[in-house]
Amino acid sequence: MARVWNFSAGPSALPINVLKKAQEQMVEYPGAGMSVMEMSHRSKSFTEIITTAEANLRSLMNIPDSYKVLFLQGGASSQFAMVPLNLLAEGETADYINTGRWSTMAIKEGQKLRYAQVIASSEDENFSYIPKITKSDCTPGAKYLHFTENNTIYGTTFYSVPETDARIVTDMSSSILSREVDVNQYDLIYAGAQKNMGPAGVTVVIVREELLGMADSSVPTMFNYQTHAEKDSLFNTPPTFGIYMLGLVCEELMNMGGLAEVERINRAKAELLYNTIDESDLFSGTVRVEDRSITNIPFVLPTDELNAAFIAEATDRGIANIKGHRSVGGMRASIYNGVPMEGVAFLVDFMKEFEKKNK
Amino acid sequence: MARVWNFSAGPSALPINVLKKAQEQMVEYPGAGMSVMEMSHRSKSFTEIITTAEANLRSLMNIPDSYKVLFLQGGASSQFAMVPLNLLAEGETADYINTGRWSTMAIKEGQKLRYAQVIASSEDENFSYIPKITKSDCTPGAKYLHFTENNTIYGTTFYSVPETDARIVTDMSSSILSREVDVNQYDLIYAGAQKNMGPAGVTVVIVREELLGMADSSVPTMFNYQTHAEKDSLFNTPPTFGIYMLGLVCEELMNMGGLAEVERINRAKAELLYNTIDESDLFSGTVRVEDRSITNIPFVLPTDELNAAFIAEATDRGIANIKGHRSVGGMRASIYNGVPMEGVAFLVDFMKEFEKKNK
Repeated sequence: MARVWNFSAGPSALPINVLKKAQEQMVEYPGAGMSVMEMSHRSKSFTEIITTAEANLRSLMNIPDSYKVLFLQGGASSQFAMVPLNLLAEGETADYINTGRWSTMAIKEGQKLRYAQVIASSEDENFSYIPKITKSDCTPGAKYLHFTENNTIYGTTFYSVPETDARIVTDMSSSILSREVDVNQYDLIYAGAQKNMGPAGVTVVIVREELLGMADSSVPTMFNYQTHAEKDSLFNTPPTFGIYMLGLVCEELMNMGGLAEVERINRAKAELLYNTIDESDLFSGTVRVEDRSITNIPFVLPTDELNAAFIAEATDRGIANIKGHRSVGGMRASIYNGVPMEGVAFLVDFMKEFEKKNK
Repeated sequence: MARVWNFSAGPSALPINVLKKAQEQMVEYPGAGMSVMEMSHRSKSFTEIITTAEANLRSLMNIPDSYKVLFLQGGASSQFAMVPLNLLAEGETADYINTGRWSTMAIKEGQKLRYAQVIASSEDENFSYIPKITKSDCTPGAKYLHFTENNTIYGTTFYSVPETDARIVTDMSSSILSREVDVNQYDLIYAGAQKNMGPAGVTVVIVREELLGMADSSVPTMFNYQTHAEKDSLFNTPPTFGIYMLGLVCEELMNMGGLAEVERINRAKAELLYNTIDESDLFSGTVRVEDRSITNIPFVLPTDELNAAFIAEATDRGIANIKGHRSVGGMRASIYNGVPMEGVAFLVDFMKEFEKKNK
């Protein structure tokens, strides 16, 4: 079976060059005489790998020296707990914007462990837009404002950081490395690697150093950012192979010309797909135009039967994981960095063919 | 550079057949048209992978149906917190035996988060033996007894479960799958995968179902065993590639004849090395004979100069990661399942040659 075009929302397609390099080095990493998976995390070879991965990520995102980059485990779901446990003392408040399932999970965990206040939500229209807030919507004295930059399920994106006097915390799991951002606008960014950065099992946290060391003694050692910051992510054995893969992905993006060029390609991919949807009489988008994501693009057909037929025929053609999340229905194309323009063009050609046949 | 013999304490050598199979399937997993790393964790292909990994582990260890097998993240270090947070209410006590660095870490975390009582320790002789306890040493009403079955740094092993009326909780990170154990003797077993089961980033928990659901609402959702048990380790995206590798390692051990045969080989490897040490006038062991580990074998030479010379010459010969932990000094050979008899024989030959030259 040949490789398919994989539109999975995560874990998702990885750049083919990265997979081929990992394959080549699987049994013997150059100069080490062993697989990356077999290396001690304290070894010279792995020290180079993790140092390079961090340097590559810092270079790509232009991360200032005043921020720590942590490679953790447990996914964004662990960050839903770590953020309030590290940044809020008992009795302090944080503001949250609810833009979908993952925001809702972050809010639930914030409310379970500390005090999380929902100041805006787009639930009224099935999360199909990004609520606009001003400072007057924020809770006075709130320690941070949390939002999900890109909503994987609903296909919406915050293209600007909301106005607030609080610290800015964002879940960037499905948009990190898809476009240029100014890290200085954020106080803490977290992201699971498995969408746009590498395999599942690595979570990146980019945090201003001044926010470290605030957790009280009731916080488990492994859930305290300071634990990992002090030891450069080597307090305990990190997910070594995942970090290696993340380093390779970053290297590939640097070779492509860095995030400016990656963003140009991603915008072109998204534009091709959105134009196809907008020009179609059969397909339609589900998201307010100005809030449309460039990484996750949901679209629907007029009937459940047509949606089902599209998904079945697409799968037969080698278009994998195109089914939309049940909360939205229809289809969703996740077109992260691992899906090249060629894959989007293949999908668009099939959409046009399907429309011709079914109009 | 050819593959070296890798005696790393963890992450450590993996069976070469497993690495080759992973290499072969890296870009296209059979029938899936994509890498395992690119698969949705909800996909049919990955469901088969995780189901098979669990079935293989259950089969190898003969795990009864009354136990849940969880694939988590965060390493044994996260278990140091999860065990007390899940099994102890405020005010309840657990007993701990201190047999080295990792026990000490587990105790510190237990004391930080709940009430952990140290009832025995071998710190008086640099953790070179396993303290023997009887029921009279245990705290009346203690909810569980925690011990580190195999002490990676010091090379000691509990070959029988200590006597207690409390539940039995053990860190099996460096001994799991090295020999047959009767899972019924334990209430909760945890182990990081990166020594004997696969790559870093997967933590296995084997827990009696009746111990689930005891955590109170202050426990972070991701640190509650029940969260993961209810969703068969798919509450959030698991470390998919690591679970796949763990499944391949288990399959390899089953092909070798299961744990009885694996144990026979591991005992023969350990015997060869211990005999070499015991028959030598130059090398000596550091551990009380009856407590010697079959997976981690520390040994020393009479002077620091000789230790340094041995390590340097061994490295030149392709014997990697043979340096002992600074707490013991000298050398340590970690001879997990990934190190075949051939590797141990190579090390022993070099030891004899070194002794001849330096006597």
